[in-house]
Amino acid sequence: MTSSATAVWDIFELALDGPSEGNPFLEVELAAVFSQGSRTVRVPGFYDGEGRYIVRFMPDAEGEWRYETSSSAQALSGKTGSVSATAPRAGVHGPVRVANQFHFAHADGTPFLSFGTTCYAWTHQPLSEQEKTLSTLAKARFNKLRMGVFPKDYPYNVNEPLHDVYQRKADGSFDFDRPNPESFRHFENQVKALGDMGIQADIIMLHPYDRWGYSGMSEAQDYRYFAYLVARLGAYHNVWWSLANEYDFLLNTKPMEQWDRFFSIIQENDPYDHLRSIHNGDPEANYDHTKPWVTHSCIQNWDVKRTGEWRAAYGKPVVNDEPEYEGNIIQVWGNISAQELVHRFWITTMRGGYAGHGETFSHPEDLIWWAKGGELRGEAWKRIGFLRQVMEEDAKNGFEPIDPKTRYPWNRVSGARDGDTTIIYFGEHQPVIWASGLPKEDGDYQVDLIDTWNMTIEPAKVVPAPANHPTRHGAVVAPTRPDSAFAVELPGRPYLAIRVRGAR
Amino acid sequence: MTSSATAVWDIFELALDGPSEGNPFLEVELAAVFSQGSRTVRVPGFYDGEGRYIVRFMPDAEGEWRYETSSSAQALSGKTGSVSATAPRAGVHGPVRVANQFHFAHADGTPFLSFGTTCYAWTHQPLSEQEKTLSTLAKARFNKLRMGVFPKDYPYNVNEPLHDVYQRKADGSFDFDRPNPESFRHFENQVKALGDMGIQADIIMLHPYDRWGYSGMSEAQDYRYFAYLVARLGAYHNVWWSLANEYDFLLNTKPMEQWDRFFSIIQENDPYDHLRSIHNGDPEANYDHTKPWVTHSCIQNWDVKRTGEWRAAYGKPVVNDEPEYEGNIIQVWGNISAQELVHRFWITTMRGGYAGHGETFSHPEDLIWWAKGGELRGEAWKRIGFLRQVMEEDAKNGFEPIDPKTRYPWNRVSGARDGDTTIIYFGEHQPVIWASGLPKEDGDYQVDLIDTWNMTIEPAKVVPAPANHPTRHGAVVAPTRPDSAFAVELPGRPYLAIRVRGAR
Repeated sequence: MTSSATAVWDIFELALDGPSEGNPFLEVELAAVFSQGSRTVRVPGFYDGEGRYIVRFMPDAEGEWRYETSSSAQALSGKTGSVSATAPRAGVHGPVRVANQFHFAHADGTPFLSFGTTCYAWTHQPLSEQEKTLSTLAKARFNKLRMGVFPKDYPYNVNEPLHDVYQRKADGSFDFDRPNPESFRHFENQVKALGDMGIQADIIMLHPYDRWGYSGMSEAQDYRYFAYLVARLGAYHNVWWSLANEYDFLLNTKPMEQWDRFFSIIQENDPYDHLRSIHNGDPEANYDHTKPWVTHSCIQNWDVKRTGEWRAAYGKPVVNDEPEYEGNIIQVWGNISAQELVHRFWITTMRGGYAGHGETFSHPEDLIWWAKGGELRGEAWKRIGFLRQVMEEDAKNGFEPIDPKTRYPWNRVSGARDGDTTIIYFGEHQPVIWASGLPKEDGDYQVDLIDTWNMTIEPAKVVPAPANHPTRHGAVVAPTRPDSAFAVELPGRPYLAIRVRGAR
Repeated sequence: MTSSATAVWDIFELALDGPSEGNPFLEVELAAVFSQGSRTVRVPGFYDGEGRYIVRFMPDAEGEWRYETSSSAQALSGKTGSVSATAPRAGVHGPVRVANQFHFAHADGTPFLSFGTTCYAWTHQPLSEQEKTLSTLAKARFNKLRMGVFPKDYPYNVNEPLHDVYQRKADGSFDFDRPNPESFRHFENQVKALGDMGIQADIIMLHPYDRWGYSGMSEAQDYRYFAYLVARLGAYHNVWWSLANEYDFLLNTKPMEQWDRFFSIIQENDPYDHLRSIHNGDPEANYDHTKPWVTHSCIQNWDVKRTGEWRAAYGKPVVNDEPEYEGNIIQVWGNISAQELVHRFWITTMRGGYAGHGETFSHPEDLIWWAKGGELRGEAWKRIGFLRQVMEEDAKNGFEPIDPKTRYPWNRVSGARDGDTTIIYFGEHQPVIWASGLPKEDGDYQVDLIDTWNMTIEPAKVVPAPANHPTRHGAVVAPTRPDSAFAVELPGRPYLAIRVRGAR
């Protein structure tokens, strides 16, 4: 029996030597049960090649955890030991969970407001490009990254990957019964690098943009792939499972029951219960996110004023990972202006959802952030970082839309509240005075004007609330009480927001 | 028997002296039958006060028309005569009709592309303001004006009207059985002034913004009012009937059957079959525009990318008269930016609909175009005039959306075709190259780049069409044939359009 120490939400890795003959990926089963008091956690192990087997455990509570392995191979079975879990390292808050129905928080309760971006195939680019991606992420303020396990074959994505994801046979063809551990080790190192920066890795497990055959594996191979990936990566605290990008473009070969089964396989092999979602291609082809194994709705839709509809339809957090990308390429999903993408982020956020960023600027060497990472060339990312800062300053339970049914005027402008903070985003609207949604009682409020593009926050000019004119719609006489205790004077230009903080 | 002459689509007015005792508005019926060959047209007359009765006839064909009156009053009955209808005056094209299902044309076949604006209560303002309205309309390029018969009581609209629409009793209260001919004469003079400028008068017959009681008349009074208005104004070639503004806000006192009946009364009293529509308030409260008496769908909705849905739902022309207004007032329907309104016009137009303008800038004396007319203070109107010019240059049968089902990419950008002209509007999209929707065959095309905000048209840079990368979505291999015979290079900024004219 061996003993070691690790911090809560870090990884304890148990490496064991075992059989290497035959195909251990297929033939050897390994798991360990970790226990603390009456709690037991069953953790699957995986084969790492060259006779090496690994079980990775992420403790979620301090104190001693004892373990014992079980395996179909005698050499790997009955190994026992203990791990002493110490307090989490500073800045480590644990896996992200759903909190307050429509929002997220880390395991320690710290709110997590998703401000993601997308670099689908960044781990398959030359290492110098991957370094650039990490440097860029270090200066940007994104806290989630959509990234695929498999390389990408698509317009602007024609280069070969750094590593084969599966091993090759003597004839050069792939052996989809033998994952390439080198590829997975590299991928998980980059997941860890993101974790160290506080960035969630939204791992896309399958996608249709393929010329290698990865999207055409057999059903049994797919299931083994899911189990292998989850066994390898589940212990990383910053993992989210995204079953696919544009899963609906794969429905001709992988029917809906198979997607449902993928979810089960993840659940069976992930003792940490990381977030699980699935991303659509066609806006009309959303997976049924009400299914109980889906933790949050992943949406691809440009029509962000509909965020409330998706909240209502699925009753779960809405992450709109593709409200179109900032860029200028020929594809229409990849050529909106920076202003428009920032606008869509604000609208989504103020309607109780979370948006995702991507950047698709035409480049002579096809170095495009959305797929390859590297450098950001646009203007939206800074403003999205500013939005994140604004939201994190006041988020407690999650900003909820002022009127979740989005009735007038909230079907036109967007506003949200969390605790005693209200933020109203006007977008294309440019009133010179505003009152709706402001507090109805007098109080010692702090009222600020936010310029979402120029990224400034300054005290707003508070003026007396205009008394309602007694409009007469037939026999209906509106009350003469003002909408609010005060109004805010505004400069009459678009893309502004106001923030009202409660008496303090 | 008397004889006179008038031009086709002008008005022949037959004035007769008759009884003035009692209440002739209620008690005297008058009509004339006009005949030409085997055709007969029954035209209702009306009482104009002080013993004066009028029948107005708008001939729609050249040649001699004979008439004979009939009346419940002997003095008005059996009057005969003839009118010689001469060729229409230059610039007079006759009433606007539905053409090609989703579009409009004048009676002589000239396409009518609706580019409307809104001055709800302009005819109730001081005469000097009304002069200003007409001068402004003379320089703007709107060709339809929404205007109410009744004065308006609403925020920014608190002044008394120029004329009472109904006569007053001795105690100062209104007698809703006695229209005030002076008020109607003034109103119809302004309708005529608009007609002389080539502007359609979209006459709003009822509205809920009322403190005088006009919206609270009895059902019988309402029906008489409709008949009276139609008898007086139907002979003006530029009349459109809009039953109400925000009719749904009057449903508590005027149930749906009453609205249906209003339509019938118009049909019974309008031998010229002018266009008939009805305007909603709540976006969810559209009248059922499939009802056969509705000629076109009048929509109030900001979500203009849904234009195709309304076309499909009602199968009639879509006129979105309120896609929100340019302005800066506190009301959220009246404070979008000029850029946004122009954007919504282009989107609506490129999706096979017609949009309406309004302007609601805060003013120290509440002189706001949307209700009072006067002066335009914004920036959208010039760009809307430019759009009208662009569309009229090529309109033949009406611009139809490239893909009426608005599938990818036409659910994101907007494009339309008429004859051999294609226009594609990118809006918030800013590709540096574009190919979708362009002709598939080589030809001698004229390709122009349109800047919708700066109002410029210049030759576009045509480049070879990019070959489709063979994207692999699972087993589906896309054809390698390019989308189009060529592509267009673009400057990579938003709010641009391209126009392709066929071989010439």
